[in-house]
Amino acid sequence: MTHVALSHVRALTFDVFGTVVDWRTTVTRELAATLGEGKGLEADWEALAARWRFEGYVGGIGAIRGGERPFTTADALHREKLDEILAELGNPLDEAEAAELNRVWHRLDPWPDSVGGLGRLRKRFVVSTLSNGNFALLVNMAKHSGLPWDGFLSADLLGHFKSDPETYLSAARALSLEPEQVMMVAAHKADLDAAAGCGLHTAFVPRPNEMPAGRPTDLEFEDRFDFNATDFHDLATQLGC
Amino acid sequence: MTHVALSHVRALTFDVFGTVVDWRTTVTRELAATLGEGKGLEADWEALAARWRFEGYVGGIGAIRGGERPFTTADALHREKLDEILAELGNPLDEAEAAELNRVWHRLDPWPDSVGGLGRLRKRFVVSTLSNGNFALLVNMAKHSGLPWDGFLSADLLGHFKSDPETYLSAARALSLEPEQVMMVAAHKADLDAAAGCGLHTAFVPRPNEMPAGRPTDLEFEDRFDFNATDFHDLATQLGC
Repeated sequence: MTHVALSHVRALTFDVFGTVVDWRTTVTRELAATLGEGKGLEADWEALAARWRFEGYVGGIGAIRGGERPFTTADALHREKLDEILAELGNPLDEAEAAELNRVWHRLDPWPDSVGGLGRLRKRFVVSTLSNGNFALLVNMAKHSGLPWDGFLSADLLGHFKSDPETYLSAARALSLEPEQVMMVAAHKADLDAAAGCGLHTAFVPRPNEMPAGRPTDLEFEDRFDFNATDFHDLATQLGC
Repeated sequence: MTHVALSHVRALTFDVFGTVVDWRTTVTRELAATLGEGKGLEADWEALAARWRFEGYVGGIGAIRGGERPFTTADALHREKLDEILAELGNPLDEAEAAELNRVWHRLDPWPDSVGGLGRLRKRFVVSTLSNGNFALLVNMAKHSGLPWDGFLSADLLGHFKSDPETYLSAARALSLEPEQVMMVAAHKADLDAAAGCGLHTAFVPRPNEMPAGRPTDLEFEDRFDFNATDFHDLATQLGC
């Protein structure tokens, strides 16, 4: 990245699931605690966590973006898939227990560098979520984990899911910035490529422990991104924070 | 307020201009510094601050709510009225200076109890703005003053200005709460009455120093509000924080 361009960047917008927080470990652990230890069931909890995420959330967003179903929130998509999984397991939870388990996505553990790295980055930049999660989920997650966000931009408030271009453009507009004054930070190349297509800068922070075993993940640094960093502390150092 | 109802409240949403921050003192001071000391002009700076707020911002929102003009942001409304005021003064500022002066609304001083009171309240509740200001303005203000918000709900993200009912209802929806789980906190009774009409709880915190001299303001406690408090510390105490 040229230093001329860098000097114009005022805000960093972050993908959250996978980039800032470790959904796989937290969700696997809570499934095992609630359904395994709590109800005496046996299953491959990590495989169920992956189904919950990829079939429920990622699949649901794809259907919404494709116009096959109306707009809804991450919370609702999570609950729909959870109910399907619980039905397969013989409906072992009552309503209060199911609602509580669905909120596991509000209390995902941050990666070890997330809180400290964001704390460094926010001294120089506005740091905001730009997530397909919903506002309440992101706010509760920050309160739970101490993630020091300056603000929350979310699919429900912006009216679009990533990687629709409107998501990135309306985020820049909400920040009262031009797209080139914003840098998207993500562990996922498709997110960054869509942001770059809208004129945002890009920082790639691969997360080698995000994915369940057997699911391939592309961790290679790329020249086309403005920055490639091993974690948020490395990004803060490269950005002079 | 009954304690039964109180036990359901999960989030407090705050009016910002006048309730959390002192626009009159800050804007008057910066007008005097930029145009008086900076450019040698003479004027009643407090009266200009009041015109900027009431004709520009409040009047603009009224026109938008009445369907007389398209949706725009607080920043844009502020700039429009500033340009009119500056033209009357003979256009003493260049573009960079005018833009900087317009951003005074991003750096308004909090009332003395605001930062500490919010810090107490957020231990028990989600505390969010629910402001006709725009997202960037509110985020910059929090960063400038250390206001410890858990989240930002703003007219530009919700697509409605207060006191349209949709504003309060979409705020509750964004928080994933029922209206009765949310309490609106404001120094202005019309804001609270509109919130109550949507099913939200209400807390009145009058701010006797908000208004310029000669502009009447209604500071009297009212039984119809769930809480009446002298400041945010008093509210925190009444709420058991």
